[in-house]
Amino acid sequence: MLINGVPGDQVSVHDRGLLYGDGVFRTLRVIGGCMQYWPRHYRKLQQDCVALRIICPEAALLFEELRRLIEQQPDGVAKIIITRGEQMVRGYAPVENMIPTRILSLTPSLDYPSSNYSRGVRLRLCDLRLAHQPKLAGIKHLNRLENVLAAAEWTDPDIAEGLLLDIFDNVIEGVRSNLFMVRNGELFTPNLSNCGVAGIQRERVIEWAAKHGVPCRVRQFGLAELLVADEIFLVNSVIGLWPVHELSGRNWNHHPISMQVQKWLNHAHD
Amino acid sequence: MLINGVPGDQVSVHDRGLLYGDGVFRTLRVIGGCMQYWPRHYRKLQQDCVALRIICPEAALLFEELRRLIEQQPDGVAKIIITRGEQMVRGYAPVENMIPTRILSLTPSLDYPSSNYSRGVRLRLCDLRLAHQPKLAGIKHLNRLENVLAAAEWTDPDIAEGLLLDIFDNVIEGVRSNLFMVRNGELFTPNLSNCGVAGIQRERVIEWAAKHGVPCRVRQFGLAELLVADEIFLVNSVIGLWPVHELSGRNWNHHPISMQVQKWLNHAHD
Repeated sequence: MLINGVPGDQVSVHDRGLLYGDGVFRTLRVIGGCMQYWPRHYRKLQQDCVALRIICPEAALLFEELRRLIEQQPDGVAKIIITRGEQMVRGYAPVENMIPTRILSLTPSLDYPSSNYSRGVRLRLCDLRLAHQPKLAGIKHLNRLENVLAAAEWTDPDIAEGLLLDIFDNVIEGVRSNLFMVRNGELFTPNLSNCGVAGIQRERVIEWAAKHGVPCRVRQFGLAELLVADEIFLVNSVIGLWPVHELSGRNWNHHPISMQVQKWLNHAHD
Repeated sequence: MLINGVPGDQVSVHDRGLLYGDGVFRTLRVIGGCMQYWPRHYRKLQQDCVALRIICPEAALLFEELRRLIEQQPDGVAKIIITRGEQMVRGYAPVENMIPTRILSLTPSLDYPSSNYSRGVRLRLCDLRLAHQPKLAGIKHLNRLENVLAAAEWTDPDIAEGLLLDIFDNVIEGVRSNLFMVRNGELFTPNLSNCGVAGIQRERVIEWAAKHGVPCRVRQFGLAELLVADEIFLVNSVIGLWPVHELSGRNWNHHPISMQVQKWLNHAHD
């Protein structure tokens, strides 16, 4: 691990990342010494920093520090946390031009069952409903208690992911993934302007659809509409794409479009 | 500062307090070697831990550690942060029975202008609207980005506090304080079942009112109703009670009931 470029695993208790969750993060796969979709990840990190008015470290600096970690270990999952930095003065109001803290780590990849990719996974409806906060929606920030509470709702290892609705019962996302449904050859993914995290695999799927002439709409929909979808799939940067084979007693055994998207996501390099 | 009872100012980057804002905190005044309202603070800390299913450290342990800090410095503001603890496994789902991290600090008190207590303060309506999350409402947890964004909305030092409404335009609280209004000799304070932090000074005011036969109702109200109040006041554990002398162009020059409550808050010991 590197903290501001220095090997270590400690941060100051004056760091606003700890005090207020005042920071953002990215999780990305490293395969054979290569960071997957680095330009997209950096762009998103930068956008999230801008949204919170945190000064985003230069791409070259982060890239070089990640390379130092990758030299020791060519495969794994890299995590980048950028906090607003340390502040000795008490209070929520951030001081101007703070120096952000960079926390970079590289840990071994988890092996997911191969059936997650072929047969699909079980998805479970969470009780927790996501709050509407347009000023934070889409951002991968460090205020993740909703995800923590939702993830704590089940322990059955057969359930791979939890489905999150918002306080108005719109479908939003998985606890750690974005969601798409397929109906009559069209893709649909929830609008994330009030809550949820807009991940880069979601962005890649939307671009794939545009390139391949597959209609893809970003809009609101509820559970009833999701349950009559032809297919459902989940995406994120670490897992890739998992089709859903079960949700709320409904089963899906064929995932032709999900499989096409999965193939493309795995083989395209941007 | 004491981290798990050991002098220091660093925590592990694997601490879920940093990774997800997965923890709670208290801020309390220490005057002449005494922690103000310790039993109430501990009770609230315990309630907040229970709500997040964090194992709350024993009162005796925290009390003893605070005493060690107070020996060095008899006056100031103590902050207690309890996080769910360190977790080496990646992921939102908390491991069972984690050992929480205790972060205790004692810093000098800020001196607020004495006019804040007598003449009152300027309150400014924030643009940010608080999201509704009943599963987190009332808890003083570490997911404080809404407060950070709201506090960043103004820099004018004449404005002492920001007023927060919720997404349905109900009045909720100050950025770092709870709010009361006075109308026809009655007190009103917002319902915090969907958002906001329920502080211990708010609880003390509600009890004061009950003891003194002053009606005090917890209910929803909007800005229009607040602006025609006879008095408004703000409370928290560090500032005590500040009357409001200005909000959105409206001025208040007399605060008879606020002053009574202030006097009682300052002199009662529970």
